[in-house]
Amino acid sequence: MGTESRLVRWICWLTVITAFFMTGFLIGWFARPTSTDTSNDEDSSRSMRDFLDEMRAENIREHLRKFTRLPHLAGTKQNLRLAEEIKEEWLEYGLDSVEMVPYDVLLSYPNTTQPNYISIVDHLGNQVFNTSLAEPVPEGYENISDIVPPYNAFSAQGQPVGDLVYVNYGRTEDFSQLEREMKINVTGKIVIVRYGKIFRGNKVKNAAFHGASGVVMFSDPADYCATGVQPYPDGWNLPGGGAQRGNVLNLNGAGDPLTPGYPAKEYTFRYRLEEGVGLPKIPVHPIGYHDAIHLLKNMGGPIPPNNWKGALNVSYRIGPGFTDTFQTQKVRMNIQTNNQVTRIHNVIGRVRGAVEPDRYVILGGHRDAWVFGGIDPVSGAAVVHEIVRSTGRLLRRGWRPRRTIVFASWDAEEFGLLGSTEWAEENAKVLQDRAVVYINADSAIEGMYTLRVDCTPSLHTLVYKVTKQVSSPEVGEEGMSLYESWHKRDNWTDDRDAPRISKLGSGSDFEAYFIRLGIAAGRARYTKDKKTERYSSYPVYHSVYETFEVVDRFYDPSFQRLRAVAQVRGGLIFQLADSQLLPLDASQYADSLTKYAHSIAQLGQKHQDALITYGVSFDSLFSAVENFTTAASSFHERLKTLDRTDPLQVRMANDQLMYLERAFVDPLGLPGRPFYRHVIFAPSIHNKYAGESFPGIYDALFDIEHAANPRRAWEEVRRQISIATFTVHAAAMTLTPPA
Amino acid sequence: MGTESRLVRWICWLTVITAFFMTGFLIGWFARPTSTDTSNDEDSSRSMRDFLDEMRAENIREHLRKFTRLPHLAGTKQNLRLAEEIKEEWLEYGLDSVEMVPYDVLLSYPNTTQPNYISIVDHLGNQVFNTSLAEPVPEGYENISDIVPPYNAFSAQGQPVGDLVYVNYGRTEDFSQLEREMKINVTGKIVIVRYGKIFRGNKVKNAAFHGASGVVMFSDPADYCATGVQPYPDGWNLPGGGAQRGNVLNLNGAGDPLTPGYPAKEYTFRYRLEEGVGLPKIPVHPIGYHDAIHLLKNMGGPIPPNNWKGALNVSYRIGPGFTDTFQTQKVRMNIQTNNQVTRIHNVIGRVRGAVEPDRYVILGGHRDAWVFGGIDPVSGAAVVHEIVRSTGRLLRRGWRPRRTIVFASWDAEEFGLLGSTEWAEENAKVLQDRAVVYINADSAIEGMYTLRVDCTPSLHTLVYKVTKQVSSPEVGEEGMSLYESWHKRDNWTDDRDAPRISKLGSGSDFEAYFIRLGIAAGRARYTKDKKTERYSSYPVYHSVYETFEVVDRFYDPSFQRLRAVAQVRGGLIFQLADSQLLPLDASQYADSLTKYAHSIAQLGQKHQDALITYGVSFDSLFSAVENFTTAASSFHERLKTLDRTDPLQVRMANDQLMYLERAFVDPLGLPGRPFYRHVIFAPSIHNKYAGESFPGIYDALFDIEHAANPRRAWEEVRRQISIATFTVHAAAMTLTPPA
Repeated sequence: MGTESRLVRWICWLTVITAFFMTGFLIGWFARPTSTDTSNDEDSSRSMRDFLDEMRAENIREHLRKFTRLPHLAGTKQNLRLAEEIKEEWLEYGLDSVEMVPYDVLLSYPNTTQPNYISIVDHLGNQVFNTSLAEPVPEGYENISDIVPPYNAFSAQGQPVGDLVYVNYGRTEDFSQLEREMKINVTGKIVIVRYGKIFRGNKVKNAAFHGASGVVMFSDPADYCATGVQPYPDGWNLPGGGAQRGNVLNLNGAGDPLTPGYPAKEYTFRYRLEEGVGLPKIPVHPIGYHDAIHLLKNMGGPIPPNNWKGALNVSYRIGPGFTDTFQTQKVRMNIQTNNQVTRIHNVIGRVRGAVEPDRYVILGGHRDAWVFGGIDPVSGAAVVHEIVRSTGRLLRRGWRPRRTIVFASWDAEEFGLLGSTEWAEENAKVLQDRAVVYINADSAIEGMYTLRVDCTPSLHTLVYKVTKQVSSPEVGEEGMSLYESWHKRDNWTDDRDAPRISKLGSGSDFEAYFIRLGIAAGRARYTKDKKTERYSSYPVYHSVYETFEVVDRFYDPSFQRLRAVAQVRGGLIFQLADSQLLPLDASQYADSLTKYAHSIAQLGQKHQDALITYGVSFDSLFSAVENFTTAASSFHERLKTLDRTDPLQVRMANDQLMYLERAFVDPLGLPGRPFYRHVIFAPSIHNKYAGESFPGIYDALFDIEHAANPRRAWEEVRRQISIATFTVHAAAMTLTPPA
Repeated sequence: MGTESRLVRWICWLTVITAFFMTGFLIGWFARPTSTDTSNDEDSSRSMRDFLDEMRAENIREHLRKFTRLPHLAGTKQNLRLAEEIKEEWLEYGLDSVEMVPYDVLLSYPNTTQPNYISIVDHLGNQVFNTSLAEPVPEGYENISDIVPPYNAFSAQGQPVGDLVYVNYGRTEDFSQLEREMKINVTGKIVIVRYGKIFRGNKVKNAAFHGASGVVMFSDPADYCATGVQPYPDGWNLPGGGAQRGNVLNLNGAGDPLTPGYPAKEYTFRYRLEEGVGLPKIPVHPIGYHDAIHLLKNMGGPIPPNNWKGALNVSYRIGPGFTDTFQTQKVRMNIQTNNQVTRIHNVIGRVRGAVEPDRYVILGGHRDAWVFGGIDPVSGAAVVHEIVRSTGRLLRRGWRPRRTIVFASWDAEEFGLLGSTEWAEENAKVLQDRAVVYINADSAIEGMYTLRVDCTPSLHTLVYKVTKQVSSPEVGEEGMSLYESWHKRDNWTDDRDAPRISKLGSGSDFEAYFIRLGIAAGRARYTKDKKTERYSSYPVYHSVYETFEVVDRFYDPSFQRLRAVAQVRGGLIFQLADSQLLPLDASQYADSLTKYAHSIAQLGQKHQDALITYGVSFDSLFSAVENFTTAASSFHERLKTLDRTDPLQVRMANDQLMYLERAFVDPLGLPGRPFYRHVIFAPSIHNKYAGESFPGIYDALFDIEHAANPRRAWEEVRRQISIATFTVHAAAMTLTPPA
């Protein structure tokens, strides 16, 4: 072999070897994942399917059965025992950790030896009629002790005596009508008010503001009986002996009345009872419609307008006082309810996130009930229990969510959202930094018609996506998705062709998370047909008749509806915890803001002259909303080209999505309500239940035509528009590229 | 060749090729970075050296010269022109973007046609003495127009006439002494108060609270002249004709008085002037000591205690009024100062972060000056300018910081920190989410002795590290580090063997960032020897004599001290922007909290009996601090084993470090001060300048022995201890593992 050919051969060799080396190198280079973030959306969606399929109707029935055997009022032994049971089972299901978190908060109970009641007394002071001391106990529960009689928690103590005045629903407008049109003054009178339309605490606040010395609340069949339905136990209507319990606080998000702003721990400073937040200064007591007839039937005074008339066979005269031969009779309230600082217990369960343990997806609902809590809250708690079980099953199969999931069983919701608010207060800083979303899980069913979702606009898209993956629970709709079933029944006709989603109001545990801390939030439950069913809430609400049976016999015999709700709540949690990119939609927020801006401007435009006189304009708000809309759509445009293999790029985008809701919170709070801080969504000061958009502007405009000082009143409107404008601009800024 | 040997040969071939392929693969596999986070601390520290070395004394001199030629009062054309110049140069230096950010805020100027002055009037109303209308202009500046005469911005207008009362420094304790011991009531009197010890706005607030009808401020040589130093221009003492300008607001962090809580934009609602935050209701005017002699020399009333006596050749009698033959003479103030909404301009420059563009490291200082601003603020602004230049040089060489750097030239600091506060308000949400640190850059020199650093405890470790990399600027200390030079001159003897670092107070632009938003913050400047130099601030402070020359001739002729300050400020920014792990130290925070808890408990322990009577204990606070200490040390322990190649692990740890400072902020604010929200650090209500630790507790304890209702007063102490306890626990929680 010549040297030349040997050289050629060596060159060939070298070339081949180099080629193989390079091939190896390149394969090695590209085979190596460039990121520790090995999220895989396909795996995730397979797990989602497993997760939803794992939830069983019969299990939910079991949980409901088990959790409704005994009363479990907040602050009682039974409710602590239930907490311990839940903790044990969550651990058994496989959560990473479950802890009990106690607080010492102000609760309120009737005096066990001196019962509360209302009397009609004659001119000698003899009681000629007394309201009943308890509801007739439903069959099968006769031997149960510790059923708390109907009462209004946090009522003041006292025995006011006086003439009755009927004030309809006790709304701001009812009292206005009473004073302005009927010229009736309630000062020193006992007002009788029907439940419904607004939160009962607002009724009491209005009554006290107008000088009433006491409040009697009653459930009118017009508001608490559906037509063609029998009273419980033959149907799901409220019987005449049933009454609605409930607190009459005006907390405006403060949580424990004695420790506003701070968790009620052993070291926490407590205000004196007289200084407590939101405690009414007058006695309040609830009665059923059988008792109400006795109080109403002999009332004198003017005949009321038709919309003040309920469905009882009485004339609904306004008073004050009784008529004719009954004129000398008065009404006396006998209220001995006690406030006392009591220990409550939240149960907090956790699943550690695999990739971003410092991002929290929270599913929380309360455990405490007025009595058995068949609907409120156990229909919801049973659903959470099944979601936890399903989560545990997936964990055992090796799945672990990208983010941390927190499950919460709150205590003392019925006493003012106390458990959830104290925990939010204790964890405020960590939640501010890390909470992605809060999904609420109170009552899962209040009707038999279709789904109801209230949530922040950024969750709309996800809610539609999830409900498309859930089957309709309705008989005859096999193969139909929940989305289609819902869409068919409750279309969002005015705006778009999709199922209606509503604004979050208040009255459940999401309040501190959403309205105070600015964490994206939502709730889902099964509901009635609002177009045809005009009663308030559901008829047996907060009565002893909220049993296992009311659900098992009437609301959801197959437990398919509760299963569907479980799949919606669980599906939301799953997607938010496991998607690589957070499924939050800023553009939906933009659409909603546009709608809200138009509707609040329309409300203002009712006062064209005043707008001109006082130089009030909504232009800046519209321009801010436009700016936000552009920022949101550019943000989502950029997301499309995001390098999903770069964990920091993903994290930065997710941070922008997570903090968007936070941007709508003003640390200064709404006027006079330091714990209601969300500038876009909060209840009006006139009704805690309903969510208003741009609540600051809304309240400033409320009844402005009767303002004592119109110039000041319109100045406040201008100020509120300016705050809303600023807030929307600030939120837009969080969506622009960070540098 | 046999088939066997051919086979062997092929096997050899295959083996070799496979080996090369595998080698290639493995090299490829391991050569590929697993993370886009390619931080390299070695590269970074080399760049840091380049960055510090790039800063030049002669450049700083140039910048100072250029920026002090003309007066540049906030709201004037000159200051806008200066802003534009700075913007241009920052762009030339190479920043990624520079923008002007305007706001329309309330400023205050003397009336140009009706000058402010103070008269002595005889019983006929004739002016027998008038104070001077301006300071004698220093040599070389005779032809400069637009030198605003000495005045107190935001003084009320008016011509109060009355007897003078001398109230020493006008502190809370001075007024107490006056009322309790000397039994002198200042109601309806004009008080004359010497500058020094506390913020002038607090003096005015105290005077107004006690009923004074006007306030005359004077600079006493005891407080504004160093011994053995000549008055300017022969030395750096305040001449007798010089007077201290300055605002007399009590904003407590509100920013623009008409738009508290919100940026002063075109859409922003403005309160009426009468409703503005912190505006004094009485006239206030400053004078020099030559004029003060005329007002003081004939005063009657008691001889004051020795610590009320200044260094003028007068008796410092308290009054009220003049003595003997002068008894009929009164003092009249003639104040015509106008408040007016005026446009101001911040300049904001940015360097986009390479890895985490959504993390902001901010260096901000003001540009506006009362006149030339030789020291305040241009010594600081010149330093910032050189830091920006050096940053630009590095950028041109290919370096880019890991995080985004923001440079700010604030406007209207002298009118209440307005520019910086409005920008903080406008960007609050984004800063809350993303700001790592705020380094303040006001006056860089106030003495010729050594370094002075005030910062949050988590920056202590970094400050020591950076100062070890900077050379001492002192003659004769060649080869010595700034750290050693500083350590030698100002050792923290009581606690540890290291240079003293102080708490942040207020009175400069870090306020909104640190005390309102809870962003880690610090400041550094060259200072005097506090042990021997007892004058307030520096003598020519806020007078026309703050020129380029006062620095060039006296404070820093070589400009080495300013260079050292530039290197400290710049070094901090560099490390915070470029280190992979944030150089913040939670354990230092723990140490400081321990020290503060002891010192506030000691203050409480002065009232042993009351502590027992009212059930006040500091135990919960100590236990919270212990809890925090454990959490901090475990956190740093875990950091040691952190996988630095995992970008999400690094990000999560950094987030905990970044949000630590945020955890000390209470959205409810300190009592009555909604914009002072930091529970650990804020000024006392008695003096804006000095930072107090646990300010809520401190203020509750202040003068408690004279409380009108001791039970209430001690209840407030308990409440404040409880808030502090909660806050420290909440901060500890942010340091524990996130799930």
